[in-house]
Amino acid sequence: MRKNYLLTPGPTPLPPEVRAAMARPIIHHRTPQFQEVLKQANEGLKYVFQTTGDVFMLASSGTGAMEAAVVNLFSAGDTALVIQAGKFGERWTELCKAYGVVAEVIDVEWGKAVDPAKIQAALKANPKIKAVFTTLCETSTGVVCDIEAIGKIVKDTPAVLVVDAISGLGAIDLKTDAWACDMVISGSQKGLMLPPGLGFISASPKAFKLIEASKLPKYYYDLKKAKKALEKTDTPFTPAITLIIALVEALKMIKQDGLENIFARHKKMADATRAAMKALGLELFAPTAASDVVTASKVPAGIDGEKLVKTMRDTYGVTIAGGQAELKGKVIRFAHMGYIEEFDIIAGISCLEKVLAQMGYKFQMGSAVKAAEEVFLK
Amino acid sequence: MRKNYLLTPGPTPLPPEVRAAMARPIIHHRTPQFQEVLKQANEGLKYVFQTTGDVFMLASSGTGAMEAAVVNLFSAGDTALVIQAGKFGERWTELCKAYGVVAEVIDVEWGKAVDPAKIQAALKANPKIKAVFTTLCETSTGVVCDIEAIGKIVKDTPAVLVVDAISGLGAIDLKTDAWACDMVISGSQKGLMLPPGLGFISASPKAFKLIEASKLPKYYYDLKKAKKALEKTDTPFTPAITLIIALVEALKMIKQDGLENIFARHKKMADATRAAMKALGLELFAPTAASDVVTASKVPAGIDGEKLVKTMRDTYGVTIAGGQAELKGKVIRFAHMGYIEEFDIIAGISCLEKVLAQMGYKFQMGSAVKAAEEVFLK
Repeated sequence: MRKNYLLTPGPTPLPPEVRAAMARPIIHHRTPQFQEVLKQANEGLKYVFQTTGDVFMLASSGTGAMEAAVVNLFSAGDTALVIQAGKFGERWTELCKAYGVVAEVIDVEWGKAVDPAKIQAALKANPKIKAVFTTLCETSTGVVCDIEAIGKIVKDTPAVLVVDAISGLGAIDLKTDAWACDMVISGSQKGLMLPPGLGFISASPKAFKLIEASKLPKYYYDLKKAKKALEKTDTPFTPAITLIIALVEALKMIKQDGLENIFARHKKMADATRAAMKALGLELFAPTAASDVVTASKVPAGIDGEKLVKTMRDTYGVTIAGGQAELKGKVIRFAHMGYIEEFDIIAGISCLEKVLAQMGYKFQMGSAVKAAEEVFLK
Repeated sequence: MRKNYLLTPGPTPLPPEVRAAMARPIIHHRTPQFQEVLKQANEGLKYVFQTTGDVFMLASSGTGAMEAAVVNLFSAGDTALVIQAGKFGERWTELCKAYGVVAEVIDVEWGKAVDPAKIQAALKANPKIKAVFTTLCETSTGVVCDIEAIGKIVKDTPAVLVVDAISGLGAIDLKTDAWACDMVISGSQKGLMLPPGLGFISASPKAFKLIEASKLPKYYYDLKKAKKALEKTDTPFTPAITLIIALVEALKMIKQDGLENIFARHKKMADATRAAMKALGLELFAPTAASDVVTASKVPAGIDGEKLVKTMRDTYGVTIAGGQAELKGKVIRFAHMGYIEEFDIIAGISCLEKVLAQMGYKFQMGSAVKAAEEVFLK
């Protein structure tokens, strides 16, 4: 017997309600029955996105939805400003390059958040910038970005603000309308507690002006087609039916808990995880802008980071994430996002203690669990 | 109490094994556990595609995989030959247009199959044609296309043969390698007995030469990236984990039954359905090239085709498809594809008899069921 604990920044664990929904017999998508599902999904997404505008669903991963943003906003030769503070910021740059969009990059040291003043300066220096690409939570480093501050800057310029909120939406606060986010991208396998396979994208009226003018080639991701279909509570292509039916269940749970309570739960889990890392003497990778969805900690000297993650997973069934790209082997990433609560975190930290002890790391056994418990007790 | 019968050409019903697989707790995709899943999926897909080459999986609908074919094969200004014999043939033309690919179209009357000699003539007349786009089973009309004959023609030209086998793969014969199909596209929600959300695309070495030279913009659908990942039993972006786990279950069932037996079952179901339509006096829409996966029949004079489909579905729980685009209200489409067997067909035909009788259509009650039973008895 072995139980599995998933503490990774996507996919996150699935609630039993979601799993049961996917096991139902399938229904056809061009029926009044499925239209009712679509209606509920659309309403629920507006609640989670905190927008009164349209949120489009794509049968794709989050990256597909990011590509949809690029191909719908631009024509070849247009200029975008990309905030690049990790692997997922780099994805925006790669997408722009793939489509002949000039990417002006603000390179931020991994583990730090961008200084919004730099965005203001860049927009002032280059009025040709049509869009600013940001990342709500940079999963590769655990850093959260101050979207509210950036929104205030971009709002009064001709540029639109695009937020990759794949990691973070439904787990930490992101007010699409109030913070003037013109496009918010997300995926199903993080805060929304679903398997991967659905991409989401919201579009403000300001974004739609660019969409109308965009000349980049597109078909499957054409948001004008998506909008036309959405107006008839339909989808332009065969939707990922079971995932959307499961989405309705997840959205019901989110509505029931309420976004504010969910954000508070994530904050508490993050505080507990950070306290545990501190108790273990593990340095946070992003001490100044740590997100409430994933905590990246430096692997202590003398410990093999890849082996640590592997042992936790393959010997004890607790899956956390290691480092990506330049951080491979150098950090461990402990996710606390989606269908995860207090005692999952305790289990994960306990397993981390066990394997660190087995690997000969010196610390006081139980100290990390105790530190986390004290946060949860408050 | 009401039971639902799904007799639509996608989605098709889900086997209980597939439904149960989707209800399992999710696992992470960058793990040896999921690599084992990917390995099994890749092997099973090769069996179903009847190829020794690579089959790539995309988190997308079938249309996404069609777009992947276009963006990977061409550069802007290239020329393609499109066989257009219905709504899905038209999709190839639309995709080419969206990407600045010149689409030379062979327009075939809806309900008829293309004459392969016309393809031969077109290729001879225009040596600039880089690819021939075909549709294995044109779902909108029920017509099956003679891919084997077309393969023999295209093989000896510089052009590649691309087959949209979204409808038909795993239900009727399509020998990717033996018939010289350079790219075969499919989707999860038809013969493969899964929910929609996965796209598949195979690529021959001949296709890969074009892929290497292609300059159309792409990112999410980049098959060079997909190939590099596949070589390490990985995916370039977060895959649709639960659907792939379910795919492994479906592929196991397909392997167990054997493709030949599955094709024979589909042929029998098609013969039975056609016999039933004949017994009812309903004319086949495609009498000369009717596929074994979906039967389109003309709605008899005096009967409201849309009401017929609606009543079967909303009053009795039997979902068949009506006509699309120019065939709206004029045909009914009865699918016999995927996880459907003899007594599902009998139930569907019985419901059709019931509603036709209620709508005042004159025929001998029971005659269609009897005709189908006689086919199944053989």
